[in-house]
Amino acid sequence: MIAEIIAIGSEMLTPFRQDTNSLYLTEGLNNLGVSVAFKTIIGDNLAQLTAAVRTAISRADIVLFSGGLGPTEDDLTREAVAAALNLELHRDNDIVTDLYKRYAARKLVMPPNNAKQADVLAGATVLPNPNGSAPGQYLDTVVPASDGKAHRKILILLPGPPKELKPLFDDQAKPLLAATLPPRHLARRQLRMPLIPESQVDARTAPIYQQYADVETTILAAPGEIQLHFVTAKPTLDEAQSRVDELTSRIEAEMQEDVYSSHGESLEEVVLLMLGLRHLTLSAAESCTGGLLSERLTAIPNSSRYFLGGAVVYSDALKTAFADVPADLIAAHGPVSAEVARALAEGIRTRTGSSIGISITGIAGPTPGTGPDAEKPIGLVYIALSDGHDTQVKQLNLFGDRERIRWWASQHALELIRRALL
Amino acid sequence: MIAEIIAIGSEMLTPFRQDTNSLYLTEGLNNLGVSVAFKTIIGDNLAQLTAAVRTAISRADIVLFSGGLGPTEDDLTREAVAAALNLELHRDNDIVTDLYKRYAARKLVMPPNNAKQADVLAGATVLPNPNGSAPGQYLDTVVPASDGKAHRKILILLPGPPKELKPLFDDQAKPLLAATLPPRHLARRQLRMPLIPESQVDARTAPIYQQYADVETTILAAPGEIQLHFVTAKPTLDEAQSRVDELTSRIEAEMQEDVYSSHGESLEEVVLLMLGLRHLTLSAAESCTGGLLSERLTAIPNSSRYFLGGAVVYSDALKTAFADVPADLIAAHGPVSAEVARALAEGIRTRTGSSIGISITGIAGPTPGTGPDAEKPIGLVYIALSDGHDTQVKQLNLFGDRERIRWWASQHALELIRRALL
Repeated sequence: MIAEIIAIGSEMLTPFRQDTNSLYLTEGLNNLGVSVAFKTIIGDNLAQLTAAVRTAISRADIVLFSGGLGPTEDDLTREAVAAALNLELHRDNDIVTDLYKRYAARKLVMPPNNAKQADVLAGATVLPNPNGSAPGQYLDTVVPASDGKAHRKILILLPGPPKELKPLFDDQAKPLLAATLPPRHLARRQLRMPLIPESQVDARTAPIYQQYADVETTILAAPGEIQLHFVTAKPTLDEAQSRVDELTSRIEAEMQEDVYSSHGESLEEVVLLMLGLRHLTLSAAESCTGGLLSERLTAIPNSSRYFLGGAVVYSDALKTAFADVPADLIAAHGPVSAEVARALAEGIRTRTGSSIGISITGIAGPTPGTGPDAEKPIGLVYIALSDGHDTQVKQLNLFGDRERIRWWASQHALELIRRALL
Repeated sequence: MIAEIIAIGSEMLTPFRQDTNSLYLTEGLNNLGVSVAFKTIIGDNLAQLTAAVRTAISRADIVLFSGGLGPTEDDLTREAVAAALNLELHRDNDIVTDLYKRYAARKLVMPPNNAKQADVLAGATVLPNPNGSAPGQYLDTVVPASDGKAHRKILILLPGPPKELKPLFDDQAKPLLAATLPPRHLARRQLRMPLIPESQVDARTAPIYQQYADVETTILAAPGEIQLHFVTAKPTLDEAQSRVDELTSRIEAEMQEDVYSSHGESLEEVVLLMLGLRHLTLSAAESCTGGLLSERLTAIPNSSRYFLGGAVVYSDALKTAFADVPADLIAAHGPVSAEVARALAEGIRTRTGSSIGISITGIAGPTPGTGPDAEKPIGLVYIALSDGHDTQVKQLNLFGDRERIRWWASQHALELIRRALL
């Protein structure tokens, strides 16, 4: 069974807006064993939309529509599907009554055009929409094809706003679809590895995952990390789970400590988890990243238990004021130096009373450093970690723009903490 | 003239990846006066792709393809276009030679399958690709349609990686397209307004922009701000520019100080610019935003001239250690209080020696505060600004999840600084 997703709305044909519902719908369809073979994005034009519906039913078994179910003249999905399939639309009185009630509850008079949201395709099941006014529709039908045979087609009309579409799809459309498809049980796993080239991950893991033809393996390169996604479908959930678990274990055995997450946690989450397990606290002194590392850590709920905070020591004076870095050390080596990184990590640890102090200082560009740093290349970054006994300093030579250099510097700092806690 | 954009690649039919090239291509086409009426996303399947090419040339005048030009068996765009249009592909010896040279320069032997990147559609212009191995192709042709007449169609084949596609489209495809289209001059302006409801912006500006039917106005809601985009096309650039400038001025006169940017600058950039014009410096003490405000400011190049840094005072102890907030003040009112926000702003200003100190303290959730803050609602945030003479404190009651509350708090803090500098 293959599916097509049609997103309807002229705003998605501008440079400003994009269809995102289809990612969510694709995952849901994949979980039912249905692949998405086509996506179409089309404006609010009846003739174009009707033709696109005809194209879709000629090439896919299941067609999902998002958008075009509202009350305005531009909302044409119902009319286009009716025209393409030669079906009647009838106005459903129960829906009309519900619409009047919605307005009455807000002490408003319903504009008459709203009633068109109650138009239902002949033979369709109405999918009530608890989060909006336009209900969805589910049509399981048979259409004659150009080969003369009759083909079964399922068309699902969903409202465009994600907070309406998602629950409507999950709670109503998916169960109806699942009941018509062979039962299937799906298991997924995910491994994440920071700061490693995709080619190296692939070279080391392909000989393993290629032995599991029944498991779909996807390698994704995210900024500063590689993710391996595994998914398989089996007659029982136990079989599916043990199959992906087996593959995951073999890959973990190969990649060892390069794997930081085997259930999808982010690097920030893993670092905070490890700090928690060891009853340790962390503080940070950030120069070139300007708060990015702290921001990433504090984006995680309850991070305050293990991350105390720290200082954004963007100016030289603040490196001295908040982390006791001697001014003459900065003058001698420049703020971007192994010496200053070391002093920052040690200073922030002492000043905050944390178990671990981490520091980042570097040249993020696009303008070069000044004074003693004037000759140093953009992308030169030092990170340091102090645990009270010992201080490690690491030199990084990063490339790319300011945003990339700052992100990778924060990623390296998180990885330095993780390795220290292993 | 209407266009269709076809993005080719099975990875864009997974839940993980999305076509983004089409946004860039749409903007470029719009600038030439061409509207995008359809977007199709399709996998690496020759029969499906060939059928999609036929559909596209039946409904659009210009068809852009992104992807499927590489050397592997899955790269099928050339073959599909040739099949759909009944055209021959011939192998271009100059391109083959270039491909061999690319490999030789890296001291590698070219795998033989790479030569297929040199296959050119009969009649097409080759668009050399300085950033990759697969060249683009531009085909201006006439095809017979179902109505019996011949229709002119332009097909443009572009490589998928954005860093190859963008320059190839801008530098080579667009000039060829522009030469075939009526000349047209386009002017754009953009106004941005923070922390204001979209409905209010629309109610106040619609009576103005509706008088400019020749200017296309788009209202976009971004997190914490509303943007108004204006674009118009006229026979001369002067006419176009003065028309959008006139509309922009009238809207600015209506919205007054709610407008922070009239040329597309971000709120961070405007705040840094205003600090620079007044020769002032800024520091920040952040609790619930955990570095987000500092991160946003330091993401802007050269921000170090006006932003000194500050402290991420996530724990109570650091509020005292880095911003001299009396411990008994925290104990009496709780860290999330107007009193602590005021002391934080004043303390960070004094400790850093900046002209202005800004502070943020609040409950971002999802877990509630503790101690004296236990009864306070999630979303309660206090921000304060101290300039050495005076300290303003503002209470916010934000809604949404942790990410939204943190973002809006940082947006309110930037807006508080901007208003203070007006």
